[in-house]
Amino acid sequence: MYNHRIRRPSLLDKVCTPEQAARLIQDGMTVGMSGFTRAGEAKAVPLAMAERAMVDPFQITLMTGASLGNDIDRRLTEAGILARRLPFQVDPVLRAAINRGEVMFVDQHLSETVELLRSRQMGPIDVAIVEAAAIREDGGIIPTTSVGNSATFAILAEKVIVEINLSQPMELEGLHDVYIPTRRPHREPIPVTSCESRVGLPYIPIEPTKIAAIVFSERSDSPSANEPPDAETAAIAGHLIEFFRHEVKQGRLGMGLAPLQAGIGTIANAVLHGLIDSPFRDLRMYSEVLQDSTIELFDAGKLSFASGSSITLGPRMTERFLSNLASYKDRIVLRPQEISNHPEVIRRLGIIGINTALEFDIYGNVNSTHVNGTQMMNGIGGSGDFARNAYMSIFVARSTAKSHAISSVVPMVTHVDHNEHDVDVLVTEMGLADLRGLAPRERARVIIERCVHPLYRDAALDYAARAARLGGHTPHLLQEAFDWHLRRMRTGTMLDPT
Amino acid sequence: MYNHRIRRPSLLDKVCTPEQAARLIQDGMTVGMSGFTRAGEAKAVPLAMAERAMVDPFQITLMTGASLGNDIDRRLTEAGILARRLPFQVDPVLRAAINRGEVMFVDQHLSETVELLRSRQMGPIDVAIVEAAAIREDGGIIPTTSVGNSATFAILAEKVIVEINLSQPMELEGLHDVYIPTRRPHREPIPVTSCESRVGLPYIPIEPTKIAAIVFSERSDSPSANEPPDAETAAIAGHLIEFFRHEVKQGRLGMGLAPLQAGIGTIANAVLHGLIDSPFRDLRMYSEVLQDSTIELFDAGKLSFASGSSITLGPRMTERFLSNLASYKDRIVLRPQEISNHPEVIRRLGIIGINTALEFDIYGNVNSTHVNGTQMMNGIGGSGDFARNAYMSIFVARSTAKSHAISSVVPMVTHVDHNEHDVDVLVTEMGLADLRGLAPRERARVIIERCVHPLYRDAALDYAARAARLGGHTPHLLQEAFDWHLRRMRTGTMLDPT
Repeated sequence: MYNHRIRRPSLLDKVCTPEQAARLIQDGMTVGMSGFTRAGEAKAVPLAMAERAMVDPFQITLMTGASLGNDIDRRLTEAGILARRLPFQVDPVLRAAINRGEVMFVDQHLSETVELLRSRQMGPIDVAIVEAAAIREDGGIIPTTSVGNSATFAILAEKVIVEINLSQPMELEGLHDVYIPTRRPHREPIPVTSCESRVGLPYIPIEPTKIAAIVFSERSDSPSANEPPDAETAAIAGHLIEFFRHEVKQGRLGMGLAPLQAGIGTIANAVLHGLIDSPFRDLRMYSEVLQDSTIELFDAGKLSFASGSSITLGPRMTERFLSNLASYKDRIVLRPQEISNHPEVIRRLGIIGINTALEFDIYGNVNSTHVNGTQMMNGIGGSGDFARNAYMSIFVARSTAKSHAISSVVPMVTHVDHNEHDVDVLVTEMGLADLRGLAPRERARVIIERCVHPLYRDAALDYAARAARLGGHTPHLLQEAFDWHLRRMRTGTMLDPT
Repeated sequence: MYNHRIRRPSLLDKVCTPEQAARLIQDGMTVGMSGFTRAGEAKAVPLAMAERAMVDPFQITLMTGASLGNDIDRRLTEAGILARRLPFQVDPVLRAAINRGEVMFVDQHLSETVELLRSRQMGPIDVAIVEAAAIREDGGIIPTTSVGNSATFAILAEKVIVEINLSQPMELEGLHDVYIPTRRPHREPIPVTSCESRVGLPYIPIEPTKIAAIVFSERSDSPSANEPPDAETAAIAGHLIEFFRHEVKQGRLGMGLAPLQAGIGTIANAVLHGLIDSPFRDLRMYSEVLQDSTIELFDAGKLSFASGSSITLGPRMTERFLSNLASYKDRIVLRPQEISNHPEVIRRLGIIGINTALEFDIYGNVNSTHVNGTQMMNGIGGSGDFARNAYMSIFVARSTAKSHAISSVVPMVTHVDHNEHDVDVLVTEMGLADLRGLAPRERARVIIERCVHPLYRDAALDYAARAARLGGHTPHLLQEAFDWHLRRMRTGTMLDPT
């Protein structure tokens, strides 16, 4: 009955229950699992693993593409399975375990994981668990809503468990473009020269004898958790659109701008949403995750093509996307994250990268990950792949958080994910700071004037002025560089009552 | 009499004195000048500019490849010419002016400057001043000991001043490989697929009518300022060689290792020097600057090929190199720094990057540039191009400085140039910390055990342990994260007297 989902008859006897498949995972193993930004993760087998660990405890190293949906990271954490986890996560329960030091989390650039595996600097992968729409006659695996690291996990793993998701339409076939770089020292240029380039196979090529188990599931991807645009995110989008108009006027960009990348989350999604009402046209995306805004831009006639590694939509957009899949399919390609985030391609295409900052400082250093320099939020994700190598690197944030108790612009960030060298433009709802070609003292002036919330402006100016009087290329007062953070920890707010 | 140096007869009437050429530079201009790590900088014209500014003050933005020799940055600073300077410098007088906030210094990844110029995010270049061995019949400029940014400066500039250095042998012709990436959105892959790849022209192609002046000089490059290897640098090299042997034993590297990059300076040069007595063979370099160690490795039969953007040698090696130029020439290529440092090529070739840290912290973040987070030393140079995109990124430092008054390993670095995501291996004379695949708490354990000087070990362990008890993925005590630096500023030493 599943002949169109398992097209290689000899594999039919590999079909088993998730519980049976989960038994292939043994204590101490390294497991590579599909899933990127809550899209296309294996679902039935990891949940069966969590069940089993309740009675038969075991621990593994779990690698994925990026974050998982369906509370899988929570369930695996609660079951005590995760000894080590990489390269990204967004789950509150796992996050707490990481911050307690119970799960060793390796926060990695998303393009790098498979490079490290391939060169045996990490690994080896014992078992890969990959969600699929179908298995081809030749054993090739057709992914679902993400490619992520699935291809290299499956190619390098000793055994592969395929989880066929019957809720995903067969029409996904053809959406993917799986290209694996050739081996060093004979590695050839990656032939992607435009967002549209198709350079690989529409499936993951593996040796079919490695497929050790096939299970079925019907569980959907978790919907995107993005919140709808609001007045602040609309203001951020507005500043950015005004800036792009200026760049077009100066002749530095055309009306199609440059290939756009946008990080996950509410703000980056809202910024792209804002382009619907902009004058720009024939836009292209070369991004990691395609979000609601991608579909909206297609439908508004603004977007010509979108390349990503996954597609993560809210409930309404999921329905629209799936019911019109044929009409979107020739305008979308999903690639391995190594290719969507590849330094080579990012520099070649000249991408405009738009990512979200947790906080940034008056000199333009960005913290994307650590609250008070200590507590992990999610991880750096792909933002470092893009920021270092992009044509233009933009970071967005609301100027304050927690009802103004936290300023997102601080004298010195408590953790640096993106340094001054990699940050071209900063935007809050207050305004936009164009830092290109500026020295640190000049950057401080522009950032404080344009981006800081008025409640914090005087304090920021005061810090910068007092530091500058003592001298230095990047003037700081080390004894009080973190005073705002310490006040927040002590009193609940960064605001100075005096 | 200079027909072999100026092979296009119509250009002979452009010959003038440095003073005459210097008059082409007007107040407010942006000048792009040759010169990379004290090699191949224009000499006569900038010195004439400095003379002129003493009586006729003017200010410019000066862009170069990297650092200059012949005290040119000092002379230009003293003459008050530099309003803005980028992307790198090493001069004490200029450094002081930068730290006083008098010269606006833009500290840039060395691969990025010409990308920003080409896309008109900086610039335009009014005048390029390029040292040459000769000018070809077609007007093409043959560089001397560096390529740096010279090609793109000359191609984009409105006017070009060529400074023919008669002290440089004509035999340099053929050493260079000038490749300029094609324009976006039709940029093709950069065809460099090995250290040896020659993919461009052996000269800088420009429109000859742009050559506005030609001057002659006989001044040599300044010799390298590297100090000879000592017991500490030998220990660092020893740890690294032991590590490489282990990697070979594990099958992750062959006896030719992988293409090597080494940053400027005494320690990186000494590390490469150490490879002379190693078992490795058929080594290759894909680096920025070729230093004494490059020639020594050639002569020891260890090195098969070296690709760089400049060649900067001490007096003895300069003589050896120049008197045997023919024998080295087919084993060396000098490229534009955009290509020597290109993310695309660095990731493709799988480079081992070895760079020097000013300080690093117990979690593996590296400060390459700022003393006490404030005072600029030199600049990030190309280390960021390599560290982010390399196969393996190694940072080296002596464990202490100033007779143990400064520990190079600190609880938290005061400035981050290379973050935890980009640092694979740390080495001091005490030992080597292999951080691959480790979470921050694990890294702290390894770094403190292997790299910290015994005088600081207990204090580092104490900080890490107390921070870890309070929790967090990267545990820190913000209120005392910079205490070591503050103590040094207050008492002259980071050592706690208690």
